[in-house]
Amino acid sequence: MKNSLITVGVVGGTGYTGVELLRLLAQHPQVTLKTITSRKEAGLPVADLFPNLRGYVDLSFSAPQDAHLDECDVVFFATPNGIAMEESRALVATGVRIIDLAADFRIQDVALWEKWYGMSHACPELVKEAVYGLPEINRSAIAGARVLANPGCYPTAVQLGFLPLLEAGVVDVAHLIADAKSGVSGAGRKAEVGALFAEAGDNFKAYGVSGHRHHPEISQGLSLVAGNPVGLTFVPHLAPMIRGIYATLYATLTRDVDLQSLFEARYAKEPFVDVMPSGSHPDTRSVRASNVCRIAVHRPQGGNTVVVLCVIDNLVKGAAGQAVHNMNLMFGLPETTGLTQVPVLP
Amino acid sequence: MKNSLITVGVVGGTGYTGVELLRLLAQHPQVTLKTITSRKEAGLPVADLFPNLRGYVDLSFSAPQDAHLDECDVVFFATPNGIAMEESRALVATGVRIIDLAADFRIQDVALWEKWYGMSHACPELVKEAVYGLPEINRSAIAGARVLANPGCYPTAVQLGFLPLLEAGVVDVAHLIADAKSGVSGAGRKAEVGALFAEAGDNFKAYGVSGHRHHPEISQGLSLVAGNPVGLTFVPHLAPMIRGIYATLYATLTRDVDLQSLFEARYAKEPFVDVMPSGSHPDTRSVRASNVCRIAVHRPQGGNTVVVLCVIDNLVKGAAGQAVHNMNLMFGLPETTGLTQVPVLP
Amino acid sequence: MKNSLITVGVVGGTGYTGVELLRLLAQHPQVTLKTITSRKEAGLPVADLFPNLRGYVDLSFSAPQDAHLDECDVVFFATPNGIAMEESRALVATGVRIIDLAADFRIQDVALWEKWYGMSHACPELVKEAVYGLPEINRSAIAGARVLANPGCYPTAVQLGFLPLLEAGVVDVAHLIADAKSGVSGAGRKAEVGALFAEAGDNFKAYGVSGHRHHPEISQGLSLVAGNPVGLTFVPHLAPMIRGIYATLYATLTRDVDLQSLFEARYAKEPFVDVMPSGSHPDTRSVRASNVCRIAVHRPQGGNTVVVLCVIDNLVKGAAGQAVHNMNLMFGLPETTGLTQVPVLP
Amino acid sequence: MKNSLITVGVVGGTGYTGVELLRLLAQHPQVTLKTITSRKEAGLPVADLFPNLRGYVDLSFSAPQDAHLDECDVVFFATPNGIAMEESRALVATGVRIIDLAADFRIQDVALWEKWYGMSHACPELVKEAVYGLPEINRSAIAGARVLANPGCYPTAVQLGFLPLLEAGVVDVAHLIADAKSGVSGAGRKAEVGALFAEAGDNFKAYGVSGHRHHPEISQGLSLVAGNPVGLTFVPHLAPMIRGIYATLYATLTRDVDLQSLFEARYAKEPFVDVMPSGSHPDTRSVRASNVCRIAVHRPQGGNTVVVLCVIDNLVKGAAGQAVHNMNLMFGLPETTGLTQVPVLP
Repeated sequence: MKNSLITVGVVGGTGYTGVELLRLLAQHPQVTLKTITSRKEAGLPVADLFPNLRGYVDLSFSAPQDAHLDECDVVFFATPNGIAMEESRALVATGVRIIDLAADFRIQDVALWEKWYGMSHACPELVKEAVYGLPEINRSAIAGARVLANPGCYPTAVQLGFLPLLEAGVVDVAHLIADAKSGVSGAGRKAEVGALFAEAGDNFKAYGVSGHRHHPEISQGLSLVAGNPVGLTFVPHLAPMIRGIYATLYATLTRDVDLQSLFEARYAKEPFVDVMPSGSHPDTRSVRASNVCRIAVHRPQGGNTVVVLCVIDNLVKGAAGQAVHNMNLMFGLPETTGLTQVPVLP
Repeated sequence: MKNSLITVGVVGGTGYTGVELLRLLAQHPQVTLKTITSRKEAGLPVADLFPNLRGYVDLSFSAPQDAHLDECDVVFFATPNGIAMEESRALVATGVRIIDLAADFRIQDVALWEKWYGMSHACPELVKEAVYGLPEINRSAIAGARVLANPGCYPTAVQLGFLPLLEAGVVDVAHLIADAKSGVSGAGRKAEVGALFAEAGDNFKAYGVSGHRHHPEISQGLSLVAGNPVGLTFVPHLAPMIRGIYATLYATLTRDVDLQSLFEARYAKEPFVDVMPSGSHPDTRSVRASNVCRIAVHRPQGGNTVVVLCVIDNLVKGAAGQAVHNMNLMFGLPETTGLTQVPVLP
Repeated sequence: MKNSLITVGVVGGTGYTGVELLRLLAQHPQVTLKTITSRKEAGLPVADLFPNLRGYVDLSFSAPQDAHLDECDVVFFATPNGIAMEESRALVATGVRIIDLAADFRIQDVALWEKWYGMSHACPELVKEAVYGLPEINRSAIAGARVLANPGCYPTAVQLGFLPLLEAGVVDVAHLIADAKSGVSGAGRKAEVGALFAEAGDNFKAYGVSGHRHHPEISQGLSLVAGNPVGLTFVPHLAPMIRGIYATLYATLTRDVDLQSLFEARYAKEPFVDVMPSGSHPDTRSVRASNVCRIAVHRPQGGNTVVVLCVIDNLVKGAAGQAVHNMNLMFGLPETTGLTQVPVLP
Repeated sequence: MKNSLITVGVVGGTGYTGVELLRLLAQHPQVTLKTITSRKEAGLPVADLFPNLRGYVDLSFSAPQDAHLDECDVVFFATPNGIAMEESRALVATGVRIIDLAADFRIQDVALWEKWYGMSHACPELVKEAVYGLPEINRSAIAGARVLANPGCYPTAVQLGFLPLLEAGVVDVAHLIADAKSGVSGAGRKAEVGALFAEAGDNFKAYGVSGHRHHPEISQGLSLVAGNPVGLTFVPHLAPMIRGIYATLYATLTRDVDLQSLFEARYAKEPFVDVMPSGSHPDTRSVRASNVCRIAVHRPQGGNTVVVLCVIDNLVKGAAGQAVHNMNLMFGLPETTGLTQVPVLP
């Protein structure tokens, strides 16, 4: 029944970004979902794994070799790191466009990537042409991308929060602090003890303080905007909730500025960034299951420390929703197509 | 931009069924949301109370006297019990149709209602003509209703689970057991100690074992179907989750029957009831934020006890979604209009 | 500093029953904790795995061959099913007494055990002499046990709830229903997708409706008490909380009886069973981290269905606490020694 | 049976710090709990309100006028702010010692207190002599206190985390950042919409960014230690857990120092502060229901930003446990008396 424009394939799709991507694509008016691959689950109806999709996704998982991905207009990789880089070259050669929700194409410095991700990069030449898919910065480049590196969840929230300050040059970029909190779905649908309900529930903890893979991605993005290498302290935390990222950002002002106006002006035309009224405290549930990022900016006691509060749904604006947004841009659709779901509260 | 057919007013709307109703109406393609009243919050932008609605609902709460509800095609009451019965008579007289999400018109026996709800009924004559809005039973009557009594959350789940068994006459109706579990949003957005996070979190409890207001509503519905008064033991429980009702139903088979076929046949044409494959265990998240009811039927060890597992989202199929479904029926729209959101998982 | 009477070894101890057992033993005034074995974690300080034990348990995990378990007075097996049966014969031969927190010695019918647990039993002769460690039934036998089968969590709650009714012979034993809900720690500290926070959180589901390993254990216990095979429908559910079992039990009364008095009399002398006042609704948090079982008994609307509400902490009264209670009985200590912690609320 | 030394009264005691205080006092070997007052609940058995105390606390709430508090050795105020200051003068005059778990005596600058707490102080002269009950700083003064101001939960965690850095003079005190996260029990057992399960559950948010009552308390403490007014940015957050405070602290090093040694040396003799090994990430559950504070110190990428991670149970070390610790000091008992409970994990 759909007036289909875009034929879509999904590689992977058994994790949380996968099911969320399928939820969004199933409701997207301009998409035909052609195939979903999973080596492990080949043959299994997708809706058997994810019963929320019963009646919405009729496909079964295909073995990769049977998937005919080269017949798709675009292929999303909702895979662990290291898969997309193996398979993208051949697909791109046949004219398929790639949106990688993993990290394979996010870091321009391949050596740095290899250090943090612990593997050799299989496809450095595509890294070079890959476009970093943060629409609020890269909109025009995204439109023409053949290989789209969809940003990480923390990097999306942290960059969107710091962006207006760095662009305006009003803070000390040598001492940026990002205290970020993530829901447990950010750890993926992997059987790991640390993500068990009885471990992560009714509990709170920092992790990766000495170093986290999203640190170089965030630093790369912020440094590009600042025009100089930034000094960033990034402390991620695991919060006992399913979805959501809460980034509390701290920077020292170097000159006086009307922060509220600065943020409102910067994001006035952005369909998915909501600058809240002065004095607001966004909460993660206000963006649950939607592609919105909400931001509030504070200057406690009128001092020279600026505090930015920034929330996203890690699986939507931090992953699958942003990927669909990028697809819309790449195929010339209105940006919000298929992404207008109202957040679910409570 | 909408091709508007239905002008809608909402009375109340500051609670959880209210915000959920607004979420659904804001996305409904055939609705113009004209007014939302709240005596207490008059003047406050709705999106200030419920930030998930920012950009979707531009209205402010109106004082009831300024709301011009009589200019609406339909008015939803998302109010505490006892409000709709006061205001419906006048509205109905002007031709407005009423959908009451509270309990005022659910019980045909007014004396029984007055006993359980602890007040005199202000409008018994409308009780008589009110239609009980469980579409799976009352579809045709709903279409013509002027006053629609939207079912309670527990009653929706319990009735849908027992219905095929009672219609087929295959169980002992004198000994039905409904062990039901509800998320805490079922208690409403009221400041009560028992619903605090630190009370209801990481905790589980039964309540109202000696008697719960939904007991007479369920009994009324089941007895109508059975053609005889049923004997029902109903034990509600509070589970530490936000949304969802899980009804585990027990009955004794009086003759042999293919239960799976019975349930599948009964609900084959129902757009919002999903009978899962034999052996399934539905979970509440598989219907989160959607209007779907999922059911599985079991016969443990092949004995004569049938166990029905039935899940709904208490705020959607158990309240606002069912109300919109009823509105669709009342105004001749396709039943699923505005109700096709994919459940949100995880 | 302790006036030590009992030298204790623990086999396993890396799971939730293990850490809970260590918590209780570390505070027990009559215990010297001599050794904790774990093949996988040998060499690791116990407190590195479980930081709550820092300062309370100084041991490291030992490899089994280095553990000198034969020098202990009692060895607890906090292992997966199938380990204790392999190692108990040799230990018992040296005079060590065994408390198995797993299921190896719980079912007297070895063939039935083998069917449900999917392995051959390595030590049937010890099954015969093993004592089922539910103190409220087996107190005197426990005192002399060489091999103690510590009951499962569901079986503890369900048996304690039904016990007074069956002993008094006042219900129809052919149609008992146990609707039980467990916190996620009941699934153990195992890396399994179904127990992830993002799967089990904000969610509710039944499981194992067609059959659960605790069914034969419960049936065995209830049948012994009833003097006849009982007919039991047992439906376990997974609730989004860490600890706690909530058993809602249903039976049909066959004659009139003062239920409150019956329950109070039965448990008047039991230190760990608290019969709450008539009309009460126990909640799981009221027993959190303690060895107490709380019970309330209801007869809704004065009908012939009796509803028993029974709560325990699955890791304490349902596992480690009951094991320590049994140890106290086996070594002639006052029963409540080391088990007087006040439940933690909220 | 207790060899009783201290006769204790509790004013208030219907909130979470109250029930926690009762849990600890009921297990304290040197305490006789004489009376608990509550104007609202007078006559109600304490254990009816808090069923975890069944069998441990036999008292009923007394009306204040019937409580004979002047016969106590010490009276704990587990009341809202503003009560202790009204009642302390008379009690102190009779020789009763006071431990106030609220904020009445925490701030030495009465005008500042009045600004933040929105009332006139009823008893400024006792503020002057009141001792701030952070034992790690004030041990000797506490011993002689007649009026003890028990610290707030956030202030305890933030001060203990910054203390070694400030005492050693190794950080820029003009730019301290405390990003703190609290469980919902920190909001108290008050019926407020924001603390409902359906509001605070599966959600995360900052609050009070422009100013929080604990800010002046923390600043006062840190400034005393630093010998100079400090510049503190304090951002509290509400996390979806019941108990626990997680303070992530940031400061800029002004000279090189072995941070791990600094912290270990500072707290070597403190019974309730556990400096974890280098590289650790404490979690809140590792201190659940215990009086321990765990701290880890990091220097990410060897830069000049120090990150301190500090966890406490807000109801124990952040309230009732610290109060009992202070009582032990005031009455010459071993400090850990009654406070040796192993944290409850999971």
